[in-house]
Amino acid sequence: MKKYSFQNDYSELCHPELLDALILAKNEQNSGYGLDSHTENAKRLIQAKLESDNCDIHFVTGGTQANATVISHILRPYEAVLACESGHINVHETGAIEATGHKVYTAPGQDGKLTPEDIENALKVHIDEHMVKIGMVYISQSTEVGTVYSVAELKALFEACKKNNLYLYIDGARLSSGLAASDVEFNMLKDLCDVMYIGGTKIGMLSGEAIVIFNDQLKPWFRHQIKNKGAMLAKGFVIGIQFEAAFKEDLYFKMGQHENELARYLSEEIKKLDIPLLSESPTNQIFPIFNKDQVTALKELYDFELWGEVEDNIAIRFVTSWATSKEACVELIEDIKTIITR
Amino acid sequence: MKKYSFQNDYSELCHPELLDALILAKNEQNSGYGLDSHTENAKRLIQAKLESDNCDIHFVTGGTQANATVISHILRPYEAVLACESGHINVHETGAIEATGHKVYTAPGQDGKLTPEDIENALKVHIDEHMVKIGMVYISQSTEVGTVYSVAELKALFEACKKNNLYLYIDGARLSSGLAASDVEFNMLKDLCDVMYIGGTKIGMLSGEAIVIFNDQLKPWFRHQIKNKGAMLAKGFVIGIQFEAAFKEDLYFKMGQHENELARYLSEEIKKLDIPLLSESPTNQIFPIFNKDQVTALKELYDFELWGEVEDNIAIRFVTSWATSKEACVELIEDIKTIITR
Amino acid sequence: MKKYSFQNDYSELCHPELLDALILAKNEQNSGYGLDSHTENAKRLIQAKLESDNCDIHFVTGGTQANATVISHILRPYEAVLACESGHINVHETGAIEATGHKVYTAPGQDGKLTPEDIENALKVHIDEHMVKIGMVYISQSTEVGTVYSVAELKALFEACKKNNLYLYIDGARLSSGLAASDVEFNMLKDLCDVMYIGGTKIGMLSGEAIVIFNDQLKPWFRHQIKNKGAMLAKGFVIGIQFEAAFKEDLYFKMGQHENELARYLSEEIKKLDIPLLSESPTNQIFPIFNKDQVTALKELYDFELWGEVEDNIAIRFVTSWATSKEACVELIEDIKTIITR
Amino acid sequence: MKKYSFQNDYSELCHPELLDALILAKNEQNSGYGLDSHTENAKRLIQAKLESDNCDIHFVTGGTQANATVISHILRPYEAVLACESGHINVHETGAIEATGHKVYTAPGQDGKLTPEDIENALKVHIDEHMVKIGMVYISQSTEVGTVYSVAELKALFEACKKNNLYLYIDGARLSSGLAASDVEFNMLKDLCDVMYIGGTKIGMLSGEAIVIFNDQLKPWFRHQIKNKGAMLAKGFVIGIQFEAAFKEDLYFKMGQHENELARYLSEEIKKLDIPLLSESPTNQIFPIFNKDQVTALKELYDFELWGEVEDNIAIRFVTSWATSKEACVELIEDIKTIITR
Repeated sequence: MKKYSFQNDYSELCHPELLDALILAKNEQNSGYGLDSHTENAKRLIQAKLESDNCDIHFVTGGTQANATVISHILRPYEAVLACESGHINVHETGAIEATGHKVYTAPGQDGKLTPEDIENALKVHIDEHMVKIGMVYISQSTEVGTVYSVAELKALFEACKKNNLYLYIDGARLSSGLAASDVEFNMLKDLCDVMYIGGTKIGMLSGEAIVIFNDQLKPWFRHQIKNKGAMLAKGFVIGIQFEAAFKEDLYFKMGQHENELARYLSEEIKKLDIPLLSESPTNQIFPIFNKDQVTALKELYDFELWGEVEDNIAIRFVTSWATSKEACVELIEDIKTIITR
Repeated sequence: MKKYSFQNDYSELCHPELLDALILAKNEQNSGYGLDSHTENAKRLIQAKLESDNCDIHFVTGGTQANATVISHILRPYEAVLACESGHINVHETGAIEATGHKVYTAPGQDGKLTPEDIENALKVHIDEHMVKIGMVYISQSTEVGTVYSVAELKALFEACKKNNLYLYIDGARLSSGLAASDVEFNMLKDLCDVMYIGGTKIGMLSGEAIVIFNDQLKPWFRHQIKNKGAMLAKGFVIGIQFEAAFKEDLYFKMGQHENELARYLSEEIKKLDIPLLSESPTNQIFPIFNKDQVTALKELYDFELWGEVEDNIAIRFVTSWATSKEACVELIEDIKTIITR
Repeated sequence: MKKYSFQNDYSELCHPELLDALILAKNEQNSGYGLDSHTENAKRLIQAKLESDNCDIHFVTGGTQANATVISHILRPYEAVLACESGHINVHETGAIEATGHKVYTAPGQDGKLTPEDIENALKVHIDEHMVKIGMVYISQSTEVGTVYSVAELKALFEACKKNNLYLYIDGARLSSGLAASDVEFNMLKDLCDVMYIGGTKIGMLSGEAIVIFNDQLKPWFRHQIKNKGAMLAKGFVIGIQFEAAFKEDLYFKMGQHENELARYLSEEIKKLDIPLLSESPTNQIFPIFNKDQVTALKELYDFELWGEVEDNIAIRFVTSWATSKEACVELIEDIKTIITR
Repeated sequence: MKKYSFQNDYSELCHPELLDALILAKNEQNSGYGLDSHTENAKRLIQAKLESDNCDIHFVTGGTQANATVISHILRPYEAVLACESGHINVHETGAIEATGHKVYTAPGQDGKLTPEDIENALKVHIDEHMVKIGMVYISQSTEVGTVYSVAELKALFEACKKNNLYLYIDGARLSSGLAASDVEFNMLKDLCDVMYIGGTKIGMLSGEAIVIFNDQLKPWFRHQIKNKGAMLAKGFVIGIQFEAAFKEDLYFKMGQHENELARYLSEEIKKLDIPLLSESPTNQIFPIFNKDQVTALKELYDFELWGEVEDNIAIRFVTSWATSKEACVELIEDIKTIITR
């Protein structure tokens, strides 16, 4: 029996406030397919935080599903999506985007992020009908390696997209943590992309992601698209209730702040111990590098992911979640101290 | 404010015992992607009820998703699935099966059911490479119009499939109700089809369907297929916990019995009032026929679906759910009496 | 060794004038991918006959390819194409349309033809996101059973499409024969549909179909779409040269007239012999009904297709081609006379 | 008016012997869909040269079509094809493979070629169901950059594939040139891959590629697959006649030898002029590097492709074809001499 799992941010059922909201609704009868009043209210609450009543919001169950549904809604058959090589759709979705008929064209990027130059370079080589047409750009906030885009970076990307008739889509699987770590405010997002999804699964919901469509051109028939992709939930209200509770006050944002604070605590303490970090991540994923014996010793006490070899050592990943306590983190640091001084 | 909704069987959150099981797990950390102990246990419990430890079980979120995932796993690109014209995959999935590249070839069937003759007829006309190859047969138990297959009927269908090298797949969105209304026992199903799914969403779960693969040939790589179709849940344990609770004892089966009993009560009382029924349905969907004024009056009190016009009258659909009370049904009958005697 | 084949209209290499045109080009170097001067000229000649310089023309190799390329260019993922049950895309393309992700939704039609009522009926039942959205209508001229649409019928269909925001697409695999048998003039077609293809393979070309896009909305990026569907020919000029020769004068139209005249001769002579015809076809396919012994005797002398059983007898199909001679037809009639009087 | 085009190897109609074979058949009636005697004979002739009567052969029209048809026949939905970054399916098919639902996973390779290490490395990172399963390997002989695999290299690749349960597929768009430049004999290919296609379009045919299936597991239902992908030609005999003529004697192989000889002449003469070559290509594509003024001057006299910038200079591509004459090459060298000495 391990002490604690830093494996990921979806090991726990859901945040107590969300569970309470669900329990409160246990005797209700609600309309199906997201046409219920909770879902309606959740949409209004999100719009209020976005300071925009001119966006369409749809709830689906998971991130891969959200990505496949949005991307195949936007693209024409001969179009590809540009992503960073480390992008989730390129690496960890088992070809789900290609299964909808579209190439994921990649740029190396830097620190898990794309730049306007990556866009220009991709367009420069796709010049005729023998190659795919780049139709949109996919980015993640926070990224798959824990980094974040700044407002300036997002602005530059969105401008590059608009200049070149591309749609910009933000995968917000870890948006809460990304917002807490960057200068991007939630209400700025409406001016920084065409579509995004607000991740719920990785920030304290049973499951659920909110797809937000800002661009009018992409709004029509999206419910048809959701159903066509097998992503329409009969009991849509289960997700609606959770987003309602998360956005009623600031719970959605506080959970990300909590995660990041604990991750920052961990990375600062680890640095004090002269243990190197693979990257400077301001979000809830950090990547310390230990030698193999240390990793083995740690594995006996904790769950975490092995990230990759760094020369003779191993980078591992600690993820903090909304449910992680300061106590668990303090204990982890104590255990690390013990292990490295053996 | 309406008195009650007989609109469908997925208006309520979930059965109290399932909610309790979820609450009980609220402080746990579980492995992701269905690799947790609850999911493992749920599988063992289902296998025990099936009296088979030689079947693979996978949990996904919804029925359309289950259908698209299973069917595109079984078929080769040039193959089609044979379904009844009224089949869910043909009518109500917004082309989700075709989106995976496959034709849904239909036979008219009878009472929502296919017969071995339908299979033989379909094969007879698909004789060369200018037409799709029929690769599998899709049926629903209970069917979309509330009817059920008997053991003898399933046996005959499965034999016809095996004789012709076809796979038989049972959509069990309403399997609980279907089992309660037929002579088919749960443990017989392992010998009556190649794959099926055990519906959870429509019988008291937040969401969740259990795909059961009996045929060894169809087992390999199914987790890859699930992920490829965007159907792999990060918090798979949320579904695992519910199936664990539903199959620990006989809850899964009792919910269907409850539904059918109330539906039978409704249909018997309605017949006593000389109100015709569109069909003889032994399951939790019944289809009484009222005149338009009566429907209007009923609509003021209750939610239900308009099914179709029958000459000058209207067939409507009442669905009973695991949560429907006898009291609500008695009240409905009283209100019908009042309305028809106005 | 049989005397002659009435099996289909693509048994012979190509019309001598087209072969001469190819031979004439044997020492040329031409640009690839249809960017050569022959192809350009062919387009201008077709536009001249259409009396329209405002249409885009693209050449591909075959009919199924043309259909899959056009239909998947027009439709969005959740959209279906409405076709007659007997439509080629529904029956004889081995699921090629579904392979691009789209449902072929069918109406029974009459004599192989759709009516505005079929469109209205299809739209009436597709009312929400649980069913596919009808996005376009597919018809064939001439149809798969040899019938033709009149100008009035096409006009009514196109109006019904425009009223309902649907695209109308005409499969012209046998357009030459269809034009020769109807009151539809070639230059009227620009006002009677959004897209069509002018069939070449079945009217004297080695292979080749000309897709004509009238609707401006459907024009952009079509070359990308062609390549994406594997339908872009490196030596596009081979098709360009043939269409150039066929449309330089009236060869394309004369071949269809020739076919129809011989088919009319055959059907009139057959009627004189009191042999029934399955249908009144004014085009190059006719369907006489013989008893089984007669069919057996005929099969010793000629190739033709068995079309279907009609009570105890068999309907067969005779197809005349651009290459069929009057002599072959006279001989066939003589042989029929001999056989039926045995 | 340019003197000559070295743009590609598909600028000319077809080899005179193939044209003669077509002309000879102009008065025949042949069965449709490749079920004619010419096609049968062509298959037997190819089998004889392969010294194998245990392979299935199918003719299609073009290379992208062949690739999409073969690859989507082999792979299951969650599987990807491994290709070299420079592979035709990755770069120049406008997403045609992805349009059939499959990811093209790439390795950098070397000189346009994959190694067993590339295969091992790809397998090493694709370890669970969150990533695609590598299902097959795609290579080209000759490659897109003019290089060739040796027997030893192909053997090593095929062994790596068999060891890892992968299928090996050879794109032989330029197989004739590839064979003439390597130690691979045509009859060895049956033991060096699972499937390949013998390119016709780029070696003197109007169009046409012969897919050869050696692996028994991949043989069944391939005609269905061809039709499903819109790749079945009504007048299949047009391709059959050409392959019959090309393989009756050694024409198919001689054309590649001719191309390579002229390309070798060009590259040797160019080297004598101290003009650098981008790579050592033994096949019919060579890549000399000129300065910009020289390229401009050459462009006035000849057509050829600009391949890429090399510092301040430009690499261009000269392609020799079956139709290229020694005289044209001598003249080109003379013109180059004049230009570089200006």
